[in-house]
Amino acid sequence: MNGAESLLKTLINNNIDVCFCNPGTSEMHFVAALDKIEGMDCILCLFEGSISGAAGGYALMARKPASTLLHLGPGLGNALANMHNAKKGHIPIINIIGDHATYHLKYDAPLTSDIESIAGSVSHWVHTSKSANEIARDCISALREAINGKIASLILPADVSWGENENGPEGSISIEKKQTVSDKLIEKAVDILHSGQPTVIMIGGREIDRDSGMKLGRIAKVTGARLCAETFPSRMARGAGTAVMERLPYLAEMALEHLKDIENLILIGAGSPVSFFAYPGVPGRLVPENCQELMLAGPNDDINYAIDQLMMKLQAEVAEPELNELHLPEMPAGALNAHKIAATLACTIPDKAIIVDEAITSGMPIFPMTCTARAHDWLNLAGGSIGWGLPAAIGAAVACPDRKVICLEGDGSAMYTIQSLWTMAREDLDIIVIVFNNKKYCILEMEYSRIGAVGGTPGVKAASTMSIGDPDLNFVKLARGMGVEAYQVTTAEEFNSRMQEALNHRGPSLIDAIIPALFR
Amino acid sequence: MNGAESLLKTLINNNIDVCFCNPGTSEMHFVAALDKIEGMDCILCLFEGSISGAAGGYALMARKPASTLLHLGPGLGNALANMHNAKKGHIPIINIIGDHATYHLKYDAPLTSDIESIAGSVSHWVHTSKSANEIARDCISALREAINGKIASLILPADVSWGENENGPEGSISIEKKQTVSDKLIEKAVDILHSGQPTVIMIGGREIDRDSGMKLGRIAKVTGARLCAETFPSRMARGAGTAVMERLPYLAEMALEHLKDIENLILIGAGSPVSFFAYPGVPGRLVPENCQELMLAGPNDDINYAIDQLMMKLQAEVAEPELNELHLPEMPAGALNAHKIAATLACTIPDKAIIVDEAITSGMPIFPMTCTARAHDWLNLAGGSIGWGLPAAIGAAVACPDRKVICLEGDGSAMYTIQSLWTMAREDLDIIVIVFNNKKYCILEMEYSRIGAVGGTPGVKAASTMSIGDPDLNFVKLARGMGVEAYQVTTAEEFNSRMQEALNHRGPSLIDAIIPALFR
Repeated sequence: MNGAESLLKTLINNNIDVCFCNPGTSEMHFVAALDKIEGMDCILCLFEGSISGAAGGYALMARKPASTLLHLGPGLGNALANMHNAKKGHIPIINIIGDHATYHLKYDAPLTSDIESIAGSVSHWVHTSKSANEIARDCISALREAINGKIASLILPADVSWGENENGPEGSISIEKKQTVSDKLIEKAVDILHSGQPTVIMIGGREIDRDSGMKLGRIAKVTGARLCAETFPSRMARGAGTAVMERLPYLAEMALEHLKDIENLILIGAGSPVSFFAYPGVPGRLVPENCQELMLAGPNDDINYAIDQLMMKLQAEVAEPELNELHLPEMPAGALNAHKIAATLACTIPDKAIIVDEAITSGMPIFPMTCTARAHDWLNLAGGSIGWGLPAAIGAAVACPDRKVICLEGDGSAMYTIQSLWTMAREDLDIIVIVFNNKKYCILEMEYSRIGAVGGTPGVKAASTMSIGDPDLNFVKLARGMGVEAYQVTTAEEFNSRMQEALNHRGPSLIDAIIPALFR
Repeated sequence: MNGAESLLKTLINNNIDVCFCNPGTSEMHFVAALDKIEGMDCILCLFEGSISGAAGGYALMARKPASTLLHLGPGLGNALANMHNAKKGHIPIINIIGDHATYHLKYDAPLTSDIESIAGSVSHWVHTSKSANEIARDCISALREAINGKIASLILPADVSWGENENGPEGSISIEKKQTVSDKLIEKAVDILHSGQPTVIMIGGREIDRDSGMKLGRIAKVTGARLCAETFPSRMARGAGTAVMERLPYLAEMALEHLKDIENLILIGAGSPVSFFAYPGVPGRLVPENCQELMLAGPNDDINYAIDQLMMKLQAEVAEPELNELHLPEMPAGALNAHKIAATLACTIPDKAIIVDEAITSGMPIFPMTCTARAHDWLNLAGGSIGWGLPAAIGAAVACPDRKVICLEGDGSAMYTIQSLWTMAREDLDIIVIVFNNKKYCILEMEYSRIGAVGGTPGVKAASTMSIGDPDLNFVKLARGMGVEAYQVTTAEEFNSRMQEALNHRGPSLIDAIIPALFR
């Protein structure tokens, strides 16, 4: 059994059975192994930014690591932005990155690059396998990291791949999660929650599931603490039957206002709230000066244990949490805009839908509007690098073939990884893509006016860097060019009808929603 | 004057007047400066891979550095593959990469990343500006590197951008190229060329211009040495009136055959020839064991001086070099294939056209066929990372608005940076894109069979990673979705007629050429 086969078998033995890939020459033995060893579902993407985004969406929804197969440093470079997003979202991924044969590196061939450096910037763990005999064991080391919420990048030189592994593959191993939460911190949190001081419990990280939300809702009920999600938790259970929960606003000015009166902040999975960017004269830390922060559990700690302990010690088990009740607004009519799309979505999201939100400014009305929709999961862009939504939808749909995925996409961010539509068609994934086509990087116009010193309205040249009309992007043609059925809509009625059609049909489709920008 | 303004003014003062960009919040002051300071042509791309590829194409054709404006680590990551290509092709670029305000980095906000590490992997020089007072001087340091054929990455924190620069911008400075060629090496080369031993002069690097080719042709004539271009020189003058020149084949087996009888290899701008990838049992170094290699001049050395000295010392000035004479083949007819496209191109390439070649396998017949076409420049992918062609065509067209750019694109590589078509339309660039639509990563099928140990034919799963049909990509729809007129062709007659139309018309257009794969 060669190195590549032993690596593949080790992955499969450990329940890693989906690989998002775009291989090259240096990965051909791994590709050949796919036909020799049963059990790996291999999904081709036409660009590596789709691969890393899909791996992230998959891992979130499958609650286990995805694997990727990337071609050398440049392939990894193409995957970098969405790998950054995954890292910031605490999402587990195992990257297999092919390299030249070890003895070939000295020739500095055209595709030679410093893969470890590139991988280091977006991975928690990087290792280059030294021989075929070691690759399966190295894979286990990567797994130990990934299972604990990390990005593990394993570099596979071509000769390690084609060399004989005399040790064979590794079997299924039990990997203990290195989750801990200190009982001392739990006591501290209990004291704070008993104090009656204005307190926010902020929950975030990889996933806010329905159960955790419910338990925290009970705790909030008995203690009077406010329950708040961080701005962009990677995954969040929402809609009818979930606990009522605030969300920290994106805009620093609004977030400061949101937190201004609190004296205690208990963080569970979430990081200390800071502004996305610095603005002249606006503080970067969003918590009041005199507020006490308690980091009860990090994103990879045992959050369930922490919450259970809190609930028990606060005798909150029997409290009735405040729940979102099902409330479907009226279907909108007339000229289309982001608010009307929000209303239609709030009405029509099917039970157990997965919402992937990269609608940027246009998405702002949708999140609050859908909190009383049918129960669904909501995926957020945790790392702020655009081009994540379409790929993440691929991954979510691969992980959950029985659930409808609705991908909310800004026009600008859609174009970053537009190739993803092809993979949706190739794999016949059950995804509705809604493109919010306002012909602008609207967020930049907003930021331009917020940035202070510059102020005011962009001049001609500045505006030209924020406008993506002229020529206007036609997402119907783009989607059809990649085998995805698509329609353009300009009224709420058209949108409602296309949405209903898409919901009734299994497979990918796209709605190109022509709307005005929310700002300016 | 704030830091961003002083930076912009310093660039313009030093003749850097084109910036390929996709800014974000952290670059808003630089964007604002564009309206305040005259003289920078700012070209928006919808993805950073287009930016870095365009910068490369521009710098090659303008023979001066391009500048880019990139948003933080992820924006740079998206640009990484084509920056790798530029670095391998010895192409000068100045990257301006925005970062968070220096004091904001400690908060580890979502978009915080290790920009210096990411930049380091594809730059010769990386520097983070520490204050607004230093940014203009730092820009001069970056220029000194870039002018000498390097990638210089200048990181611009937001507060450096918006802070006051009390020193103002730097004026135009004279940057001496650090070009040297040792006279001792020239003597050595002369001795070799006098020896009568089988010798190849291999020329390569950033550019093989018409004059250098001609002079080397004279030297070859008087010495009997063979004249050979490296496989992928970044830019090469070709066609009627240029010196006859071999080209080192891409396939290692063929390259070994090509060089097998030589006793001396004189390298001018070119690196020592090595195989692109390692293959079990095939040597990586392509030069015979007993062959003497002389590196006469590196890609950034004074190649013109070296060649002039050789020519003088060998008394070759008056020799008649062997020249390519104009020969236009007959226009082909019948079902379309890569060979017929090659014939049509050989017939129709207009004088001074710029050919951008990323047609991969389908391009193989085109290079030899066009050596007797009308005089043109040929741009090659030097770093092997696909997704370079469409962006490089943008850059070439921006640098040379009066020349026709013909971009030869594989279907697979086109999809990597397909967003580039939009910028062609936005800027109304005079580019004809020919997509070789064979529905495969044909090179991978070829490599799969070459890789030895695996051998034979890909199985079902392996084949699925190399096939990009099902659904078939429709480049007509894709192009029209981005405002570029496009037509699909399946016969030589249709291709000839669409090609003629495109040649007669100014502005971007695309021909989706449905052809069989050249291999298998």
